Amino acid sequence: MGYLCRRKFQHMPIDTRMKVHNYSAGPCILPQEVFEKSAQAVIELDGSGLSILEISHRSKPFIEIMEKARALVKELLGAPDHYQVVFLGGGASMGFHLVPQNFMKLGGKGAYAHTGEWSKRAIKEAKLAGEAVVVASSEDKNFTYIPKGFTVPGDADYFHFTSNNTIFGTQYKEFPKSPVPLVCDMSSDIFSRPVNVPDFAMIYAGAQKNMGPAGATMYLMDPGALGKTGRPLSPMMDLANHAAKESMYNTPPVFPVYVIMLTLEWLKRTGGVAAAEKRNTAKAELLYTAIDRLPIFQGTTANEDRSAMNATFVLRDKALEPAFDALWKEAGISGLRGHRDVGGYRASMYNALPLESVQALVEVMEQFAKKNG
Amino acid sequence: MGYLCRRKFQHMPIDTRMKVHNYSAGPCILPQEVFEKSAQAVIELDGSGLSILEISHRSKPFIEIMEKARALVKELLGAPDHYQVVFLGGGASMGFHLVPQNFMKLGGKGAYAHTGEWSKRAIKEAKLAGEAVVVASSEDKNFTYIPKGFTVPGDADYFHFTSNNTIFGTQYKEFPKSPVPLVCDMSSDIFSRPVNVPDFAMIYAGAQKNMGPAGATMYLMDPGALGKTGRPLSPMMDLANHAAKESMYNTPPVFPVYVIMLTLEWLKRTGGVAAAEKRNTAKAELLYTAIDRLPIFQGTTANEDRSAMNATFVLRDKALEPAFDALWKEAGISGLRGHRDVGGYRASMYNALPLESVQALVEVMEQFAKKNG
Repeated sequence: MGYLCRRKFQHMPIDTRMKVHNYSAGPCILPQEVFEKSAQAVIELDGSGLSILEISHRSKPFIEIMEKARALVKELLGAPDHYQVVFLGGGASMGFHLVPQNFMKLGGKGAYAHTGEWSKRAIKEAKLAGEAVVVASSEDKNFTYIPKGFTVPGDADYFHFTSNNTIFGTQYKEFPKSPVPLVCDMSSDIFSRPVNVPDFAMIYAGAQKNMGPAGATMYLMDPGALGKTGRPLSPMMDLANHAAKESMYNTPPVFPVYVIMLTLEWLKRTGGVAAAEKRNTAKAELLYTAIDRLPIFQGTTANEDRSAMNATFVLRDKALEPAFDALWKEAGISGLRGHRDVGGYRASMYNALPLESVQALVEVMEQFAKKNG
Repeated sequence: MGYLCRRKFQHMPIDTRMKVHNYSAGPCILPQEVFEKSAQAVIELDGSGLSILEISHRSKPFIEIMEKARALVKELLGAPDHYQVVFLGGGASMGFHLVPQNFMKLGGKGAYAHTGEWSKRAIKEAKLAGEAVVVASSEDKNFTYIPKGFTVPGDADYFHFTSNNTIFGTQYKEFPKSPVPLVCDMSSDIFSRPVNVPDFAMIYAGAQKNMGPAGATMYLMDPGALGKTGRPLSPMMDLANHAAKESMYNTPPVFPVYVIMLTLEWLKRTGGVAAAEKRNTAKAELLYTAIDRLPIFQGTTANEDRSAMNATFVLRDKALEPAFDALWKEAGISGLRGHRDVGGYRASMYNALPLESVQALVEVMEQFAKKNG
């Protein structure tokens, strides 16, 4: 029966119809086919007789999965051949820690742009390791815009910025120029648009937005930029060690890496990051146009810095919130409340969110505005 | 259709019949019902309309999962109320790093028992943080036994040991006494037998043996033993911070934690660690008796230190290996080769491996001995 059950599930039809419009800020919606395929693999991985949860990470099937996931990151982002990819546990918060450990010289300093909670945590880590120079900040207006026109000092060991701010809904439309190695936390908009990878010494990103489930963080780096700090590093803290061991220094997060591979396969098949950008732009335009058209709502960020991933907005009359909440919940919309630190609303429109979900939300907004406008 | 498919899968029969006898050393076999239930949750979590892979870690369903998993660890091990549980990414290798960071005073030292590759890595981390005193070692006989009768110095900040050695197949049958806080890497035998938790300042374990899939590591600790080192710690390196935030300082490995919860529910329902110990003892006796009875095979560790989790053995005549390998593979046995550093054979008999799998292996061994003895 176990065997039959496995087989049966493998032949079940895959469908993309949705039950819920999932606007969660992360972990977030992934392609429906990724759920189907990964559920199959939890039962049995590709006819191996074993679940993806019980195979050895040193087994041939998993080594192939790891290699495919690493290769797809480079292929989809057009990374130079010599760049390396590793997947580690710990989330981007671990990345905040690893950046100064791997890029800041002993007695050196890191330069940072401060655009919200995530950069704040990254800066804190740099201060623990040495000196952090904040070269730009949007804290004066509660992080509602992206700082521009700043200069990165040439004597910093690296410059770090956060490409997209999930909490406040801002996004760099042009990446800053830097005379020193550029390091970017791209957790919430990686794979959402093309990036010129050679400009970056390292791009890192928690998987749980456009890449996969929670439990793995991707580091894409120029190995030539590593190993220059003079810091004695634990092997677990040493990105060069993880890269040299092809992301297998110790047991990797097997299932999250598998789901990442599936998600990147889907992205490749649907046209890669260029096509994703087009879809994301269409979704963002649809929603922001509605926000601007309906005076009952108000966007909360500078127009030119609006994130295509996370649209933040409020009801001008906060007293209307319970009625609005009831309406969108009734329409099958989920995860629309803003981050607990800022309130209001946040529509996260990651790669896997279909246009239909944005249409459903805009309909609800129009309906609500008509009734209460 | 997507919706229907979800529902259909939920009503599919659950069966425990196995196709493969999985002897993998970790990641390893988990209960078949855990595979079925977690595959269901990847399709849809408990009628939520959402996959476990797309729900927010701040959502009510996941907070309940996290709390249940944390509570089950304490319940199953009989931990005192004030002990705390967190699940972090990074594997036990991250634990090796966290131990000195959280327990070794600035200018202080850690005491270690050295029983193989994992303790070697743990000791390396202590040396990076300060001083490591190796108070006992079985390196003189290539880690084929557990050192006994040693003394832990009273001026060490802590004493660290590895309860079970997956690579060499040795296991502490009695835990060492220590005048200083006791810290144990229990990755490969946690939940396999009762433990007196109050003896330990901290027990930690990678999930991927008796607890769940790869991608999460459990830390069970006495919070009173933390925060005494004088070290400035990154929030990600600070176990007290993770405990205070109830294992939600940052996005946790959502799916691995869910599978841990399911695995611990299974363990509870099947009688807890006392019943698991009985089953594990029966399996180990069956296999070790065969090894000792059949002169074609030879155990590789001191009899009194033989691990109930990982039985290591060799063929006295190495030339017979290809024929033996063909036979057990034909019988549906998987993962029996020894660790790449030591060769020979290793039968890993974790909690979820049924007695029937050991019977199948013993039959193959007897058949092979009869033919070649």
